[in-house]
Amino acid sequence: MTVRPSRRLIPVSLITVVLTLAAAVAHAGDLLPSWNDGPGKQAIVSFVEKVTRPGGASYVPPAERIAVFDNDGTLWSEQPVYFQLLFAVDRVKALAPHHPEWKDQEPFASLLKGDVKGALAGGERAVAEIVMVTHAGMTTAEFEQIVKEWIAAARHPKTGKLYTEMVYQPMLELLAYLRANGFTTFIVSGGGIEFMRPWAERVYGIPPEQVIGSSIKTKYEVRDGRPVLVRLPEIDFIDDKAGKPVGIHSRIGRRPIAAFGNSDGDLQMLQWTAAGSGPRFMLLVHHTDAEREWAYDRKSHVGRLDKALDEAAARGWTVVDMKKDWKVVYPSGK
Amino acid sequence: MTVRPSRRLIPVSLITVVLTLAAAVAHAGDLLPSWNDGPGKQAIVSFVEKVTRPGGASYVPPAERIAVFDNDGTLWSEQPVYFQLLFAVDRVKALAPHHPEWKDQEPFASLLKGDVKGALAGGERAVAEIVMVTHAGMTTAEFEQIVKEWIAAARHPKTGKLYTEMVYQPMLELLAYLRANGFTTFIVSGGGIEFMRPWAERVYGIPPEQVIGSSIKTKYEVRDGRPVLVRLPEIDFIDDKAGKPVGIHSRIGRRPIAAFGNSDGDLQMLQWTAAGSGPRFMLLVHHTDAEREWAYDRKSHVGRLDKALDEAAARGWTVVDMKKDWKVVYPSGK
Repeated sequence: MTVRPSRRLIPVSLITVVLTLAAAVAHAGDLLPSWNDGPGKQAIVSFVEKVTRPGGASYVPPAERIAVFDNDGTLWSEQPVYFQLLFAVDRVKALAPHHPEWKDQEPFASLLKGDVKGALAGGERAVAEIVMVTHAGMTTAEFEQIVKEWIAAARHPKTGKLYTEMVYQPMLELLAYLRANGFTTFIVSGGGIEFMRPWAERVYGIPPEQVIGSSIKTKYEVRDGRPVLVRLPEIDFIDDKAGKPVGIHSRIGRRPIAAFGNSDGDLQMLQWTAAGSGPRFMLLVHHTDAEREWAYDRKSHVGRLDKALDEAAARGWTVVDMKKDWKVVYPSGK
Repeated sequence: MTVRPSRRLIPVSLITVVLTLAAAVAHAGDLLPSWNDGPGKQAIVSFVEKVTRPGGASYVPPAERIAVFDNDGTLWSEQPVYFQLLFAVDRVKALAPHHPEWKDQEPFASLLKGDVKGALAGGERAVAEIVMVTHAGMTTAEFEQIVKEWIAAARHPKTGKLYTEMVYQPMLELLAYLRANGFTTFIVSGGGIEFMRPWAERVYGIPPEQVIGSSIKTKYEVRDGRPVLVRLPEIDFIDDKAGKPVGIHSRIGRRPIAAFGNSDGDLQMLQWTAAGSGPRFMLLVHHTDAEREWAYDRKSHVGRLDKALDEAAARGWTVVDMKKDWKVVYPSGK
C-alpha cells in the first residue's frame, strides 16, 4: 500500500464524493463528438470504462493510468515535412544576415534559395547542421521566446493556418476524455522537447513536466551574476524508435497502459506498452484522408507507417482510419 | 490563459467547493508537529501562506508550485557514507561467488575484506567500477527487484535501523504540508534515479515520475519476443552540482519556487531556484546533532556544506539547525 501523506489530510468521504461526481460528469454525454461511431471509438470507450470501473477485474488505479502520445502525425499534422524543420528553415532565414558565409555553404545555400529538398539532400548530416545552428548557442529562456514568437505567427505553406490550428480535434477530445477519467497524458515525441513545451500546455493541456522529446545538452553558467542554461550543439537524447521506451522509463518510471502513435517510429513504444500486465490499449492513427489532410503510409518519407501497420493487424491493435473515423480533422471544423 | 480541457468538464462551482474545503483542511491544526517553533518553521509557513493566499500579491497558481528536494542528507541520513554505496557493497558481496577474480582485484578485494576505506582509496575510478558491476548488466525490472529486496531487509551499520527508518520525520511532514497546499514535490538527487524510485512513493509519497536522479544508459531489446530495457555500464547523467539545474529544466521544464538541500552539491539548484521572478524559498538542512544524528559541515567528505552555507548567510536563505529546530529526527521518535 502506497503512503500518500497529503491525501490523508482530506477526509476520505470528501474524496469519494468528489471522485464520484467527477466520474459521473466524465461519463455524461459524449466527450468524443468528433469521432464517428465505429470500432475505433468503441475500442477507446470500452477500454476506458473497463479500467475505471471500481471493483472491476480490470480496474487500474489513477496513479497507474499513464497514456503516452506521439506528437507529429498523431496530435498534429507532419506534412510536407515535420513542422519543426519548417521552424528551422525560418530560423536560418532570420539568422542569414549575420552569416554571409551561408550563401556558399550547404545545406544553408539551398535553404536560402527556398530549395528545402536540395538542402536535405545532404541527409542526416545536413539536418543535424541545420538543427544545431538554429537550436543551439542561446539560453533556454531565449530559445523558449523564439519558439513562442514563431508558433504565434508562422503559417503552414499549404493550408495557411497557424501550426497550432493543425492539431487534430478528435485527439484533443481524446486527451481531455482520458484526463477526465483520471489518466495522466504524456507526449513522447521524436521532436524537440523545448520546441513543444512552450505551447503544449495551452494547445493540448499537457504541462511541461509531461512532455518527453529529443534534446540537446545544456550547460549551467552564471552570467553577470545570473544563472542561465546554455543550449549546446550536442545531441543529448533521441526520443524516437527504440529511444521511446528508454525515454518513457527514464522520465516516467512506470509503464504506460495506453499508447497512441502513427508511424514506425512509434512501434517500440507500442510494443513496450503492450508488454505490461493487465489491460492495455495501443492505437495507430492511419493517414487516409488526402482531401482534408494527407494520405500516406508505407512509402512516405515522413511518418512512414509500414512495420507498425503489420504488427497492429497481427496483434489486434486499434487502427484509426482518419477519413472514416473522424468527423472533422482540425478544430476549425474541416 | 492555459486551456485545460479536462477541467472544464467538472463544474467550476464544484472545483471551488473542493479547493476551499481542501485548503481549510490543509491549514487546520499544525501539520509540522516535529518542528520547534522558531525562525525556520516560521519562514516555511510564512512562504506557503503567502503563495497560496488567493488574490494576494504573491499568489502562485498550483501548477507553478514546484518544490525540489535533495535526498541524501536532506530527506534521509547520509553517514558514514551515502546509503547507495552501502547497497553497492552488499551487492559486491552477493555477487562475489560468481567473480572469483575479485579476490585479487581492487577495489573489490578490499571491499570483500570489509575495508571500505581501502576500496575507496582508488577514488572516483574505484567508485565507478563498483557502481558499474553492481548497477549495470541486468534489466530495469531485475534491478528494481534487487533494490526492493535490499531496502526491505538491509540495516544501517551504526543504528541497526532499516534505511527507510532513517528518513527525517520533520521533512516527511514538510513534504505532506507542501502537497496539502497544492505543491508538487520532486526529488532532485545525485543518487541513482532507479535506486530511489522503488521506495520513494511508499516512503515519501513521491511517485516515480517526480524522481530525478543520476542515471546510467539503458537499451531497448526484444528477448524471447519480450521487450526489456537493459542497464548499460555507461553514465547517462550526473544529477549533482551544476547538473541539478540541468536535470530540473530537462525533466520538469519549469523553474521551482522552493528548493531544499543540505550540501554544496545543492548550491546550483538553490541558485537556479532563487533566480526566478516572484516569491522564492531556499532552505538548507544543517547537520548539527551529533547525538541524534551526525554533526558535520565544512570539512566533511560526505555532504560537505561550505560554500552553500556562506551563500545562504549572504542571501538570507533559511538554514535549519537540526539540533535546535527538530523535535525528533526519525519517525521512531528519536
